[in-house]
Amino acid sequence: MSGQEFAGLSCLVLGAGGFIGTNLCRALLAHGARVQGYGRSQPFPEALAGVHWTRGNFAEHEDLARIVEGNDYVFHLIGGSLPETSNKNPAANISANILSSVNLLEVCRQCGVRRVLFVSSGGTVYGITGSAPTPETAPTEPISAYGINKLTIEKYLSLYRYLHRLDYAVLRLANPYGPFQTAHRRQGVVAALVQKALVGEPVEIWGDGTVTRDFLHVQDVVEAMLAVLRYDGPERVFNVGSGIGRSVNDIVADLEGLLGRDLAKTFRGGRRADVPVNVLDVALIQRETGWSPRIPWLDGLCDTMRWMAQQP
Amino acid sequence: MSGQEFAGLSCLVLGAGGFIGTNLCRALLAHGARVQGYGRSQPFPEALAGVHWTRGNFAEHEDLARIVEGNDYVFHLIGGSLPETSNKNPAANISANILSSVNLLEVCRQCGVRRVLFVSSGGTVYGITGSAPTPETAPTEPISAYGINKLTIEKYLSLYRYLHRLDYAVLRLANPYGPFQTAHRRQGVVAALVQKALVGEPVEIWGDGTVTRDFLHVQDVVEAMLAVLRYDGPERVFNVGSGIGRSVNDIVADLEGLLGRDLAKTFRGGRRADVPVNVLDVALIQRETGWSPRIPWLDGLCDTMRWMAQQP
Repeated sequence: MSGQEFAGLSCLVLGAGGFIGTNLCRALLAHGARVQGYGRSQPFPEALAGVHWTRGNFAEHEDLARIVEGNDYVFHLIGGSLPETSNKNPAANISANILSSVNLLEVCRQCGVRRVLFVSSGGTVYGITGSAPTPETAPTEPISAYGINKLTIEKYLSLYRYLHRLDYAVLRLANPYGPFQTAHRRQGVVAALVQKALVGEPVEIWGDGTVTRDFLHVQDVVEAMLAVLRYDGPERVFNVGSGIGRSVNDIVADLEGLLGRDLAKTFRGGRRADVPVNVLDVALIQRETGWSPRIPWLDGLCDTMRWMAQQP
Repeated sequence: MSGQEFAGLSCLVLGAGGFIGTNLCRALLAHGARVQGYGRSQPFPEALAGVHWTRGNFAEHEDLARIVEGNDYVFHLIGGSLPETSNKNPAANISANILSSVNLLEVCRQCGVRRVLFVSSGGTVYGITGSAPTPETAPTEPISAYGINKLTIEKYLSLYRYLHRLDYAVLRLANPYGPFQTAHRRQGVVAALVQKALVGEPVEIWGDGTVTRDFLHVQDVVEAMLAVLRYDGPERVFNVGSGIGRSVNDIVADLEGLLGRDLAKTFRGGRRADVPVNVLDVALIQRETGWSPRIPWLDGLCDTMRWMAQQP
């Protein structure tokens, strides 16, 4: 892959300071794109060297035209609150999330953006599924306001394409993990477990540890986003995951194996917004774009430990 | 059916002054329920004699507790703008519609409401369907903000049941017609055609007149709502329609047959928010509640003409 593959392309990344945003910006820059970043904060400013940064709060309905103008592609990675907290005040999320996103689409069509790539949530839009792995055509019955909002934004993307020919792609992302995921936000069970293991504190397990998720290394996530950026076929909604389910207990056991010692555990009450099992069927994106997950799980887990151990 | 079947029940009807609301309130009263009506206006105040009326604007996020308090059942019939106009300012509808509805659910759970019955839109939540008639399990890909909002509210109802055990039912309504539907709101093609025919003006046909819909007389609509009110089985989302498709051209031909004369026609451009065909599969509500449409189409059309001819 040429380091100048995306030379001449201007990409706007909304939520550029976050975990996925930081990784995505670096990959886009490495492929020669001009990258504009937008977000509330940059926890890792050095990692975003070369990104044209604009600070702002998406939820406050500010004038987005000034940041969208001149960009070919817009990556929308702003997720609002987490699934669990979203259920505490669903009304807040509607305004902060759906309304802001529709305002964004309005601006994108006015500015002639070529495509909006939206990071949706493969872990929440389906809800409690019958049988894993879940294909894109499964029923969508979220059990969190977070999931409803992601789904609603998907519907508005489809509407804007229908009404205004604004092209889009949706990536229904599994549970990403890896470098730049911090353990402080209660999102990212891998980061949380690794961090506790490294500092020698008991790892926290919600429920009985059988909650099962589809974990994908962020390098694979970013490759999937670039694959969809290159793609010009007919599909628009893609699951992005490993296709493999791992429980929290599995992760703890793997960490114990890597560290060569048992970890102390603290069990906490189960969370209402957590579906028991979420594993994605990723046949569609594989068939359509040729993308496949490449980082083996234990390699990815090692990489995450290494990165986290280097943080101050 | 006893005239006192619902004696002792308190029902709140949001959107009570509208076409369906007016018919529903009358039916609930006739069955002995205590009926509280809420809405912006009462175009037919005499028709709502016996209804405890509260005037208010749902979109303005006022304090709903004062009207919800003390009611067993809440019928949510407020639809916001029409499919076509909803697409002109999608952002406006999100606030007026989704946010207000979530606020309503929050109040309903706090007030201990037994069930919320929500009138959704069988004509817009599915979008452009492959083959008619459409069952409840078909994909939902709306082509109007109106349809997206209805669908999103359905998801929030499901969430509130999951999180707070607030029971609900969704009626995905086909195209209702009949008494108290006025020709002024651009909703209700039957009312619009009948009104033009009666005053001797050319009937207006959007597109080429092949747009096909599932028309259901409002008396059948109301009977379906009462059937769902009585129902306590496991299903929660019901199509409510005739299961039969009729084009606008069919209706005009039937009107010409009833009137014994040809009608002058004005053809207007097709509307982007109109799906070509919408016919609902109503097997589920028939099987679960025993309800079936009873008013034959030509009888319903006659009844509509008679009612409209009597209006001042």
